[in-house]
Amino acid sequence: MADINHQILLASRPDGEVSAANFRMVETPLPPLQDGQVRVRNHFLSLDPYMRGRMNDTKSYTAPQSLNEVMIGGTVGAVVASNNPKWSVGDKVVAMFGWQEYATTDGSGMQKVDDAHIPLSAYLGSVGMPGVTAWYGLNYICAPKSGETVCVSAASGAVGSVVGQLAKAKGCRVVGIAGGPDKCGYVTGELGFDACVDYKAGNLRADLKDAAPDGIDGYFENVGGEIMDAVMARMNAFGRIAVCGMIAGYDGRPMAMQNPSLILISRLKVEGFIVSEHMDLWPAALRELGGMVASGKLKFRESVAEGLASAPEAFMGLLKGRNFGKQLVKLV
Amino acid sequence: MADINHQILLASRPDGEVSAANFRMVETPLPPLQDGQVRVRNHFLSLDPYMRGRMNDTKSYTAPQSLNEVMIGGTVGAVVASNNPKWSVGDKVVAMFGWQEYATTDGSGMQKVDDAHIPLSAYLGSVGMPGVTAWYGLNYICAPKSGETVCVSAASGAVGSVVGQLAKAKGCRVVGIAGGPDKCGYVTGELGFDACVDYKAGNLRADLKDAAPDGIDGYFENVGGEIMDAVMARMNAFGRIAVCGMIAGYDGRPMAMQNPSLILISRLKVEGFIVSEHMDLWPAALRELGGMVASGKLKFRESVAEGLASAPEAFMGLLKGRNFGKQLVKLV
Repeated sequence: MADINHQILLASRPDGEVSAANFRMVETPLPPLQDGQVRVRNHFLSLDPYMRGRMNDTKSYTAPQSLNEVMIGGTVGAVVASNNPKWSVGDKVVAMFGWQEYATTDGSGMQKVDDAHIPLSAYLGSVGMPGVTAWYGLNYICAPKSGETVCVSAASGAVGSVVGQLAKAKGCRVVGIAGGPDKCGYVTGELGFDACVDYKAGNLRADLKDAAPDGIDGYFENVGGEIMDAVMARMNAFGRIAVCGMIAGYDGRPMAMQNPSLILISRLKVEGFIVSEHMDLWPAALRELGGMVASGKLKFRESVAEGLASAPEAFMGLLKGRNFGKQLVKLV
Repeated sequence: MADINHQILLASRPDGEVSAANFRMVETPLPPLQDGQVRVRNHFLSLDPYMRGRMNDTKSYTAPQSLNEVMIGGTVGAVVASNNPKWSVGDKVVAMFGWQEYATTDGSGMQKVDDAHIPLSAYLGSVGMPGVTAWYGLNYICAPKSGETVCVSAASGAVGSVVGQLAKAKGCRVVGIAGGPDKCGYVTGELGFDACVDYKAGNLRADLKDAAPDGIDGYFENVGGEIMDAVMARMNAFGRIAVCGMIAGYDGRPMAMQNPSLILISRLKVEGFIVSEHMDLWPAALRELGGMVASGKLKFRESVAEGLASAPEAFMGLLKGRNFGKQLVKLV
C-alpha cells in the first residue's frame, strides 16, 4: 500500500500565458484512513480549457482556484481502501479530485460508474462533462432542425467531436473547424462531419464559405476570436450561437468581437452557458451519450499524457491546440 | 389644389458620415388621380436610425435604399382626394410614403388611424414602429421580472422612453443612459426612470455602477460601442440583452464588442431583432400602447423639424444624438 501522494498545486497566477512555474508538484504522506473514509487511486485526470479561467483571480462564474492548493480537475479512478460501507475496493468512480494521484474522501461528490461497456476514461470525455456540455449547448441553444447547417470550432476536441456527431444524427449538415490537416481529416473521415475547415491554412473565410454554402444556422463556439468573427459573418438569419468557450481570450487579453452589429443584422441569438448549472439534465444526457458510446455510434479520440508530472506541459499544449482529442493524464 | 410634389431622393451613398450632398430635393408634378387612386398629404415624416443602414449598399436585413428614389420613411397624413370608395377625404392614415409631401396610391399598405384621443404624430412614435419595437424587445427578449433592473440606452428617444416606462409599469428598477443633463433630467423627472446616466459626463462605468447597484438583468441596446461594453460588464448572471440598434457603428466603422467572453462568464443571452418580422404581435402592442398614451400613462416628447427641406439636417442630427425625443419632420 502506497503511503505517499503526489499532488500539483497552483503556485502562482499566470501573467499572460501559462508557464510551468505556475505549478508546483509536492509529495504528501497519505494519512491513515478514518472511519467512514474511502481512498481512491485516480487513474485518469481530465485537462480542460475551463481550468485556465480558474487560474485567474478575476470575476468569473465560479471562485478562482486558490493558490497553494491542489489544482481542480475531473478524475476517474478506483477505490483502493474503504472504511465506508457504501463503497468497496474495486469500485470505479468519477469525481473532481484534482491534479493528484490519490484522494481521501467521505465519498461525497463521487459517482460510481460501470466500465463494462464504456471505457473508464470516457467518463471524463464523451460520457462526462465535455459530452454533456456538447449535448446541452447543441440541443438547448443551437437547437438545429434537420437540414440546417451546424458549425463547431475545436471540432476534433472532447466537446466539438460530440457536438458534430449529435448534429449529424439529427440530420444536419455539419461543418467543423480545426487546426491542421490531420485533425480535419479525422473530423471528416472518422467522425463523419460533412466538411472541416483548417483555420491554420490561412483562408478561413473563403474556406468556410465553401464548406457552408447555404450559410450557418447553429454555431457551437469553443474558441472565440477571429474564428468567431468569421463564423458570425456566415450566419443565416435567426442563427443561434452557443458560447461554451473563448479559449482565445483566456490569456488575459480579451479578444474583441469585431462586428457585433451582425447580431442585429442577422437577428442572431448568442447565449453563454455553463453545463454545471443544468444538473437536472445530466442523467438524460449521460444515458443518451453512454448508449451511443457503448454501441459505437459516438466515436472519440484521446491524447494521453503519462504521469502526473506531465500535466502542466499537457495543459499548456491544450491551450495552444496541440492535443488531438480529449486531453487526459494517465496516473497509473 | 396643389399640383407640385416635393420629394427628397437618395443622391449618393455616404462614405462614412452622412452629409447633405447624399440627398437631393426634387419637384415633381402631381399626376391626375386615376380610378381607384387616393392622394394623401403627408403631415409628418418620421426620421429613424434604421434609415442610416439602408443608405449603405451592404448586406443587411432588407434591400438597400435605391439611388435616385424617394428616401423611405414612415408618414402620417390625411386623404386629400379619393377615387377609391374605401377612402374618404379627411381620413387620417399612417403609411411608409417616404420623404415627400404627397403620395399617390391605391391604398395598399396604408392604415386608417383615429386621432381623436391620440395625436396623429404619435402613430410614428409611441403608438407606431418605435413603440412596438420597445414593447417587443422588452417583453420578448429582456423579459424582466418585477424587482429586476432594466437598463436602456438612448433613453430619452422614441424607443428608449417607451422601454423604460413599460419596465417601470412592470415593477422594475429602470436605469436610462442618455447624453447630457437635460435629457437625463427629462428621463428621471418626466418619464419616471429611477436613474439616468449621462454618458457624456465621462464617468460612464462608475456612474452606471452607482445607478445599478444590484447589477443589470435586462438591457435594451440602442447604440452599441463603448456604452454596450460598459453595460455588459454590469450584467448579472443570466442577463438578457435585446439588440435593437447599433447606431455607433452605422458610419461604416464596425464598433467592436471589447469583451465578448462576458457572454460566457455571465451566461448572457444577446439577441437581435427586427420589429417588422413580428407583425402578428403589432395589434396587441398597439392596443396596449395606444391605451397608455390616450390615458396619459405613457409620455413622449418630440423634436419637430419644419418643412421637408429640413429633413436631411434633422436626420444627421439624429445620428449624432442632437434630437430630444422622437424626431419628426412637419410637412404642413
